Amino acid sequence: MRIFFTEQHRLRDAKTELSGGLLVPPFEAPFRLDLIMAACAAQGHDAPEEPARHGLDVALQVHDAGYVAFLETAWTRWKEAGYEGEAIPSCFPARRMVQRVPTDIDALVGYYAFAAETSISVGTWEAAVGAMDCALSGAEALSSGARSAFAACRPPGHHAAIDLFGGYSFLNNAAIAAQALRNSGCKKVAVLDVDFHHGNGTQDIFYARDDVLFVSLHGEPQEAFPHFLGYADETGTAEGEGFTLNLPMGRGTGWGEWSVALEKGLEAIGRIGAEALVVSLGVDTFERDPISFFKLTSDDFTRAGERIASAGLPTLFCMEGGYGVEEIGLNVANVLTGFESA
Amino acid sequence: MRIFFTEQHRLRDAKTELSGGLLVPPFEAPFRLDLIMAACAAQGHDAPEEPARHGLDVALQVHDAGYVAFLETAWTRWKEAGYEGEAIPSCFPARRMVQRVPTDIDALVGYYAFAAETSISVGTWEAAVGAMDCALSGAEALSSGARSAFAACRPPGHHAAIDLFGGYSFLNNAAIAAQALRNSGCKKVAVLDVDFHHGNGTQDIFYARDDVLFVSLHGEPQEAFPHFLGYADETGTAEGEGFTLNLPMGRGTGWGEWSVALEKGLEAIGRIGAEALVVSLGVDTFERDPISFFKLTSDDFTRAGERIASAGLPTLFCMEGGYGVEEIGLNVANVLTGFESA
Repeated sequence: MRIFFTEQHRLRDAKTELSGGLLVPPFEAPFRLDLIMAACAAQGHDAPEEPARHGLDVALQVHDAGYVAFLETAWTRWKEAGYEGEAIPSCFPARRMVQRVPTDIDALVGYYAFAAETSISVGTWEAAVGAMDCALSGAEALSSGARSAFAACRPPGHHAAIDLFGGYSFLNNAAIAAQALRNSGCKKVAVLDVDFHHGNGTQDIFYARDDVLFVSLHGEPQEAFPHFLGYADETGTAEGEGFTLNLPMGRGTGWGEWSVALEKGLEAIGRIGAEALVVSLGVDTFERDPISFFKLTSDDFTRAGERIASAGLPTLFCMEGGYGVEEIGLNVANVLTGFESA
Repeated sequence: MRIFFTEQHRLRDAKTELSGGLLVPPFEAPFRLDLIMAACAAQGHDAPEEPARHGLDVALQVHDAGYVAFLETAWTRWKEAGYEGEAIPSCFPARRMVQRVPTDIDALVGYYAFAAETSISVGTWEAAVGAMDCALSGAEALSSGARSAFAACRPPGHHAAIDLFGGYSFLNNAAIAAQALRNSGCKKVAVLDVDFHHGNGTQDIFYARDDVLFVSLHGEPQEAFPHFLGYADETGTAEGEGFTLNLPMGRGTGWGEWSVALEKGLEAIGRIGAEALVVSLGVDTFERDPISFFKLTSDDFTRAGERIASAGLPTLFCMEGGYGVEEIGLNVANVLTGFESA
């Protein structure tokens, strides 16, 4: 399996995350990808390749142009405004308020955010572009005939909506890859999101479209971040009706229930005749993940890779979440090994 | 002028405010009311009276019941969840997300917030109830025939919307007082908001109603908090069309332009035949306020009080903002003295 990775991810190294009313060191940090790449190498996966530079054209097919321009300049404008900390939203257009783009940078950060835990820091934009390039090079590998690829994206992307950042996500790598696969001729593409957290950004981007199916297995929104999207009754709108499938699960979900949901998702993917599959690969479903509440074991990740392979589709894995523990490397490598062995 | 004040305000003494990406000591702190009460005494105003206890009936006429219940229990639930810091929202239902009330307390704090700068801390609820009681006792004073009263509310209230806290506001004291005046028989009530910041909460509460006129003089939303409400083209909706008047002004606005806007507001109040006036009194329009950008002088506040008196209406002043500098006391006392001397 071709693996795309860039050292550029290290530029995303924020100092602060708002958590429990405190500013703490972020859970989403460079060590994550170190563990993942080391474990992939240890399991004999291919050496990583540097992604090509792609520019922003595909990103602008799924994200709002004003949002992308904001991300590109946010850190510079924030520092120019004289703020001492990292850029964290403090005011946002809640229900019944106007969704009009402000001029003030402090207000812009809130306008374009759905969460305040994720600060914009020096290098965030450059790292996000590098992650997007990994996803796009992965999509190109599939278009060139590869059975599978792994985009070692960092920062992750699946929480980034059309014009909203948060959940450690800025550019939606998986959605951008799915769009690239559409551009290269796949009539239907599926995104299977197995991260513990609902991929609200990906859902938002494709919610009214019937050319990209979005399937997500995740913790119940009532209790799990991002809280305000991912209910089972969200099924798409307009032409996209029926092209969103949410499979939320409760506290303590293990392989038994989780694998049944995975089968449901794979059936839906088969039903629409998807020609390519993008997997938003989070391993925060792991039993010892510090910020989640599912109970998958390391062996379960191997099984998950095998099941995903059973779809028989060209498959791009895009890295999303998985935090805190050394096993995140093992768990990611297990998914890829399971997939390849099937 | 009868003045209502309670020491209960000291219970609102949060440790943290999210500002410029850092957690800093809040601008809105107990010393503000110390300065204000001292200056009122120095100018010979009446001794403050303890407000009566009113319960939540009137508050529940302007706020959502779920929101009020949330405020009452938020701190306890937050601590029970084991969070170490104060309750600060980190995830919120942004545009295109679902407005469904979650169960998790971390998510609830975001569901009921439009800003993350204002933490919920121990004693916040008790202080907010005390501020509300000051406003309600002030409204009762008018209903009993007083020409004017001053509710020394702390925490302030004008940013608190039907079901949103933020901007240092939890219960909307001025809106609750206006509702009480309606309940006691005034056919039309006007709220004149002269705080530097737009009174988004008060606007939200009365936006579809024709029995309460909301007039606000404030910094341009593009540049000034709360950013996402307060544009001139917001004029009310349904029956409330024409009963909201926003007069936003730019950086450096001084008495000349500000007093013209004040006259416009007073004309509108006269036009609808208001029988009572509630003034959301912020003095953060002061030239040396640390977080605002108008340029009123201390003498201008005396003139403002005189002009407000020219409306000839029973008038309740409810304390809102004004930060950082010793003159906040003088400026508030000047408004009251100007009013009484006119």
